[in-house]
Amino acid sequence: MTAFADRLIEATRGRGTPLCAGIDPHLNLIPKLFRPKNLQDGDMSPTAPETAEAIRDFSHELLARFRGKIPVIKPQSAMFERLGPQGMMIMADLCQEAIADNMMVIMDAKRGDIGSTSTAYAHAMLGHDAGFPSDALTVNPFLGMDTLQPFIDAAEATSSGLFVLVRTSNPGSADIQGITAKDGRPVFHHLADLLRPLVEAAEGQYGFSSIGIVAGATYPEEAAELRRLLPSALFLVPGFGAQGGGREDAFAGFVDGPEGPEGGVVNASRGISFPHDAQDADNLSTWRQAIDRAIDDAISTLRG
Amino acid sequence: MTAFADRLIEATRGRGTPLCAGIDPHLNLIPKLFRPKNLQDGDMSPTAPETAEAIRDFSHELLARFRGKIPVIKPQSAMFERLGPQGMMIMADLCQEAIADNMMVIMDAKRGDIGSTSTAYAHAMLGHDAGFPSDALTVNPFLGMDTLQPFIDAAEATSSGLFVLVRTSNPGSADIQGITAKDGRPVFHHLADLLRPLVEAAEGQYGFSSIGIVAGATYPEEAAELRRLLPSALFLVPGFGAQGGGREDAFAGFVDGPEGPEGGVVNASRGISFPHDAQDADNLSTWRQAIDRAIDDAISTLRG
Repeated sequence: MTAFADRLIEATRGRGTPLCAGIDPHLNLIPKLFRPKNLQDGDMSPTAPETAEAIRDFSHELLARFRGKIPVIKPQSAMFERLGPQGMMIMADLCQEAIADNMMVIMDAKRGDIGSTSTAYAHAMLGHDAGFPSDALTVNPFLGMDTLQPFIDAAEATSSGLFVLVRTSNPGSADIQGITAKDGRPVFHHLADLLRPLVEAAEGQYGFSSIGIVAGATYPEEAAELRRLLPSALFLVPGFGAQGGGREDAFAGFVDGPEGPEGGVVNASRGISFPHDAQDADNLSTWRQAIDRAIDDAISTLRG
Repeated sequence: MTAFADRLIEATRGRGTPLCAGIDPHLNLIPKLFRPKNLQDGDMSPTAPETAEAIRDFSHELLARFRGKIPVIKPQSAMFERLGPQGMMIMADLCQEAIADNMMVIMDAKRGDIGSTSTAYAHAMLGHDAGFPSDALTVNPFLGMDTLQPFIDAAEATSSGLFVLVRTSNPGSADIQGITAKDGRPVFHHLADLLRPLVEAAEGQYGFSSIGIVAGATYPEEAAELRRLLPSALFLVPGFGAQGGGREDAFAGFVDGPEGPEGGVVNASRGISFPHDAQDADNLSTWRQAIDRAIDDAISTLRG
């Protein structure tokens, strides 16, 4: 199989958008249309079979809207784990279906551990044949570069990718990532330095690497700085749409490509999955039209 | 329910040992006794139903050996995730059974994310009613203190505990944890400072806090230093037995309790689950005796 970075660039060029659609089925945001009849008020038990059915229906309906339009989806593992083992089954099925439908899957599970435990996580979640099939996985580097190696090995063996957490956009992200080292540079710069050789070793034919980063830059200048630190890393940019930033912020770390800004994917979750006019829809056709509009809006906003 | 820290101290005093038994069913270490008949050579497909059956049998047999002797078990989530959704079902059942059998469960899943995603992980894995039931969860603090808050809230609401990764014992742990800040102290000291108020706010009647740390100190002096930094934190000490340290190393961060060293749990995984003489056992009774000996050895080594 072609390397992840090359497949991602081809997929985003092919669909004409770097939009990544997050699938984060928050229990308390599932529209009433999908809720069990007797639980219209948000009081669903997470581990009840009827809750699983609601989440399954909702997620698969979303996937059907994305088909043919969106190059990459990003399931949020936590939202499925919340449902217990039945949620994990829904997530595995969803990933399989997305891949069969010619979408790429970034598994957002932020895994990280040491030694053979990292290997087990990597094999669980990387590659089309994994129990939880994906094209790429988000990973946490806090335990050190040696703990990333099993993920890198598994990614290489399965032509998959990784997105390493480097800089997140939450209020407390500076607590550790932003500690100033004795050379005056923040921890996340040091992390970028440590990642550079790994990123460079996985560059593909379009100049981008299959080892990317989660670049949740709070300010556009930070994204540009991350791009300077890691020129070939694919960026997974969270927070487009409902969570905050617009087009300019989303592309702050991208570079000019033949068909527009290039260099990763821009994720939108709530703005696409839970637009206001979909939440109150009383029939499937109205809900579908609302989701379709939200997708088209996101794509056209990114086109500028 | 009584606070986690108090329950843990009572459980370790009650059993007369702070030994925690890791349940890490490495696919390639499962003894031949439990392997499907046609797969004696370690070549099991991780997602095949017969593999799940082997792991289920092995894990439940282990649990039966621990019953009445060991106060706390620590399932390693990665090893179950490796089997896909069927593995998650085995893990959920195992945790439920351990709790019913009067053992405490530390879910070793090293989760961490931002905002509502952290909340979903916390609700998925904390408390006896969670989809993956536990008494405590290991968490990764790299994204910042605000991302720990949903875990702390859920732990408090369910009388559960947390073990925050502060210092791991792998070769690359210094990459980020050991970066020297401009004040001359390493990142993990700064992290301990940030954790201190959270730890102190969750202290129980025995002087220990339900917010603990994973203290994989490489040298005994480091463990003693972590104890100075966080006097009331419960320590989850990995690496006892097969992975390295002996009694003195294991207790380097503990304090004198009424019945011996106190201050957390000491985890042993491979030394208890995969002792040499159990690996080649050709009947269940031989295997059980080997595991029983390994458990008794670990307990008596810790007693000194």
